[in-house]
Amino acid sequence: MRIRKKPWAEAELENNNRVIQDAPTRKGKWAEFFGNDNPIYVEIGCGKGGFITKNAQAYPENNYIGIERQQSVVALAARRTDAELPNLALIWENAANLSDLFEVGEFQRLYLNFSDPWPKKRMYKRRLTYRGFLQSYREIMGEHAEVFFKTDNRNLFEFSLNEFCADNWKLSNISLDLHNSEFEGNIMTEYEEKFSAQGMPIYRLEARYDK
Amino acid sequence: MRIRKKPWAEAELENNNRVIQDAPTRKGKWAEFFGNDNPIYVEIGCGKGGFITKNAQAYPENNYIGIERQQSVVALAARRTDAELPNLALIWENAANLSDLFEVGEFQRLYLNFSDPWPKKRMYKRRLTYRGFLQSYREIMGEHAEVFFKTDNRNLFEFSLNEFCADNWKLSNISLDLHNSEFEGNIMTEYEEKFSAQGMPIYRLEARYDK
Repeated sequence: MRIRKKPWAEAELENNNRVIQDAPTRKGKWAEFFGNDNPIYVEIGCGKGGFITKNAQAYPENNYIGIERQQSVVALAARRTDAELPNLALIWENAANLSDLFEVGEFQRLYLNFSDPWPKKRMYKRRLTYRGFLQSYREIMGEHAEVFFKTDNRNLFEFSLNEFCADNWKLSNISLDLHNSEFEGNIMTEYEEKFSAQGMPIYRLEARYDK
Repeated sequence: MRIRKKPWAEAELENNNRVIQDAPTRKGKWAEFFGNDNPIYVEIGCGKGGFITKNAQAYPENNYIGIERQQSVVALAARRTDAELPNLALIWENAANLSDLFEVGEFQRLYLNFSDPWPKKRMYKRRLTYRGFLQSYREIMGEHAEVFFKTDNRNLFEFSLNEFCADNWKLSNISLDLHNSEFEGNIMTEYEEKFSAQGMPIYRLEARYDK
């Protein structure tokens, strides 16, 4: 998602204490930041923050960290999260290297929602479900790793199924049409609300890797 | 597939030496029947036999056994296979119990093509990719089991993905639109030719289980 640069974005990011400016210095200290030892769930590419905010509201027993590399987008997300949500943090950062932000085992689940499909074949290594990324996710999550993945892009979903299987993740709750399935408790992203309203099927899976 | 009873079916089955009348008595002796130790690949529900016949023609280094429970259908298949195909056998039998027909390890791969989707939810245990069947397939195949599965039914494919994963098979070559994928060497069934010509996506996967 590309949005116009917002002039107020910088000020918003400075003044909102849900936005972590110095994220790499928090590495290994996220429990301290949240003030508890609850599970930490991370979303890469949280966009305007609808999904992660609704999760934080619905599940106060978990901590949530949204990572977004576009300043204007994370600023929009920050604006919406001025509500009292002690279990939510937003990071304006390129998530390419999660090990800059987290110690091994410091978070337990990763959400990938509507990631860039990089449709050109030669670009497949940029897709966030490319096996190289999957390996890095399970390494940083440690003993038990979980990735929950949603997309409206059939080709990306097909690619992802094959990548997860090739890297020996255990898959479950695979949906080829999430909104017409029996899956309960789905929390929609902004993007998902828009596209599913047009009748496009949404694909979803849960992947787990136990060492 | 239901077709009208063919009056000539019985005679065809009697006189065609590719049709095995006394299949259970061949259990443990299939290598003897084919006269070699080549791999044996089985199709459950071979219908009119287009898929298994084309495979037998394309890969003379393998042996193929098609199983079909409808007499008239297997008779049609038999008619087409009067060609000299020493690596093909057809069995008119209900394949529910493969262990009546094969010793453990006697065949190495199972093809399931466009199996009955049994769409009613309470009928899920009849679907040929239900985990109870998957377990019986891997038990009868022994050390290394392979199931190659195709369908045009999205719900059945979704169900099957989840069942294979739940039963810990290793999946690969997963296609959500086979005929627009890069997969090469696809051999079509009669049903597939008809439905893919209408632009319906065909779903496919390969599943392996190593003891």
